[in-house]
Amino acid sequence: MSQGEFDLIARIRQRVASRDDVVLGIGDDCALLAPPPGMQLATTMDTLNAGVHFPPETAPADVGWKALAVNLSDLAAMGAQPAWCTLSLTLPQADAAFVDGFCDGFFALAQRHGIALVGGDTTRGPLSIGIAAHGIVEPGMALRRDGARVGDEVWISGTLGDAAGALAQWKAGEATTPALRARLDRPTPRVELGRELRGLASACIDVSDGLLADLAHICRASGVGADIDADALPASVALRAAFDAGTRRVLQATGGDDYELCFTAPVSQHAAVQALASTLALPFTRIGRIVEGSGIACDGIGQNKFGYQHFA
Amino acid sequence: MSQGEFDLIARIRQRVASRDDVVLGIGDDCALLAPPPGMQLATTMDTLNAGVHFPPETAPADVGWKALAVNLSDLAAMGAQPAWCTLSLTLPQADAAFVDGFCDGFFALAQRHGIALVGGDTTRGPLSIGIAAHGIVEPGMALRRDGARVGDEVWISGTLGDAAGALAQWKAGEATTPALRARLDRPTPRVELGRELRGLASACIDVSDGLLADLAHICRASGVGADIDADALPASVALRAAFDAGTRRVLQATGGDDYELCFTAPVSQHAAVQALASTLALPFTRIGRIVEGSGIACDGIGQNKFGYQHFA
Repeated sequence: MSQGEFDLIARIRQRVASRDDVVLGIGDDCALLAPPPGMQLATTMDTLNAGVHFPPETAPADVGWKALAVNLSDLAAMGAQPAWCTLSLTLPQADAAFVDGFCDGFFALAQRHGIALVGGDTTRGPLSIGIAAHGIVEPGMALRRDGARVGDEVWISGTLGDAAGALAQWKAGEATTPALRARLDRPTPRVELGRELRGLASACIDVSDGLLADLAHICRASGVGADIDADALPASVALRAAFDAGTRRVLQATGGDDYELCFTAPVSQHAAVQALASTLALPFTRIGRIVEGSGIACDGIGQNKFGYQHFA
Repeated sequence: MSQGEFDLIARIRQRVASRDDVVLGIGDDCALLAPPPGMQLATTMDTLNAGVHFPPETAPADVGWKALAVNLSDLAAMGAQPAWCTLSLTLPQADAAFVDGFCDGFFALAQRHGIALVGGDTTRGPLSIGIAAHGIVEPGMALRRDGARVGDEVWISGTLGDAAGALAQWKAGEATTPALRARLDRPTPRVELGRELRGLASACIDVSDGLLADLAHICRASGVGADIDADALPASVALRAAFDAGTRRVLQATGGDDYELCFTAPVSQHAAVQALASTLALPFTRIGRIVEGSGIACDGIGQNKFGYQHFA
């Protein structure tokens, strides 16, 4: 560890808010944590690489926000309450201005969800952000992918295709629509929604790779198929204004990075789901049904046509 | 997630051994874990980047071993029992041969310590391995950096400078001595030692950045200084054969990557420490004393002279 690394860690450390269950935070070989007795831990780890997961010119604050958001979204998709995280920050050089900006976004979101940064490291290399996040969930109450049953309704929160729309504009060298770009750079992890879906949803996943690709994970894990109504997929006003109907529908069905929750629930919970949307002031849309068989029917849109390809 | 990423994850997943406390392993948005009631979690996260933390031509099996070893070493330094880990593997392209080799080393070490891989991701980018590791430790029993007291003896396990010796040979374009290269590529995390030091050591750290740099962390955290006898630092036969006495002493005092444990213990525990060395068949060397003040006196070897500089 060099003086440069010490300085960066000090800059990060001074921003940290702790929690009562953090026995020992940043500064030793490990953090020491006291999980609440009788609860389970939900654990996830996601890495974002510059130029792969975000445009290289993305503002440091947006990078910090998004790196945490994608991990919080995994906790949300399990119905877990965020608790602790560790950060592995790889930078081309010791860049205090980058770290300060990164912290602005990272800690703004961390504070919102009461998640404490308890450790990690800084290393030298191409810009990359690895985060491991841990949440708490009651035994048997986690939202898994394998609980969808034939006849269940398929729901999606918010709107789809916004982040993919911004990315499509960026790739085409066009100016990005601010409302769409905000969805790409500052996704909202649906943590409260995930918590409220415990006991209500039969299966849940966050939309990171594209609706059809992610719903396919639920179908495979549950041993079922799905019928999706492409016309029912929710679109924002900004997306409708920026793309023709055909392009928009593909972005909605196959574009990634929206971080909405796609969940299934028995028909008997239809009214409860609608009531929850009202409580959270977050629109839900019923986009289809779970059916016997395998695979997803969606008016002819291939599920991998535009899905994100890490190793394409 | 692309087909390539699926294939890589499938290759990794088939190698995984589970544990009873893994409620849900790889394959959902999060893993679900059941920590033992009343115990604390020790959590760490370290990333290795090709060309920074290991020579680019390092064998994939050695990369897999070392990436896990450095994290297990952090658990060892806290006295924690390894339990679970997540892996973030960034590869330039979907390379099944690399992943298979990586798994050979990674799972050989994982099996030895009973740590279960429960999640993570694979992404595209310059070769980088991020691991978050979690261990279990009894409340109040973790080995921290802040417990060293004036008069305590300072101990080191094993030998020092071997990994740095191999690195020095490699940087000079020379053939690396096999015994030294093995210490660089396949470090042995001192997990059993860390467990046995609970209740015996007053402070502990693993030697990753170099003895003097790492002991300085103990001194700062404990508000003490240390007198170290450079002539007492243990050297392997291979290191003695490969370097003159002056170079060797610098490698031992300031070279990183040995992953031995440096710990302090009251004089009253001297016999118990020696007995433990015998039990574990691992030599310990008493290399100095904790003293009043701050900083480390070590016969004139500057503590940062050769210490590893991430952002140099």
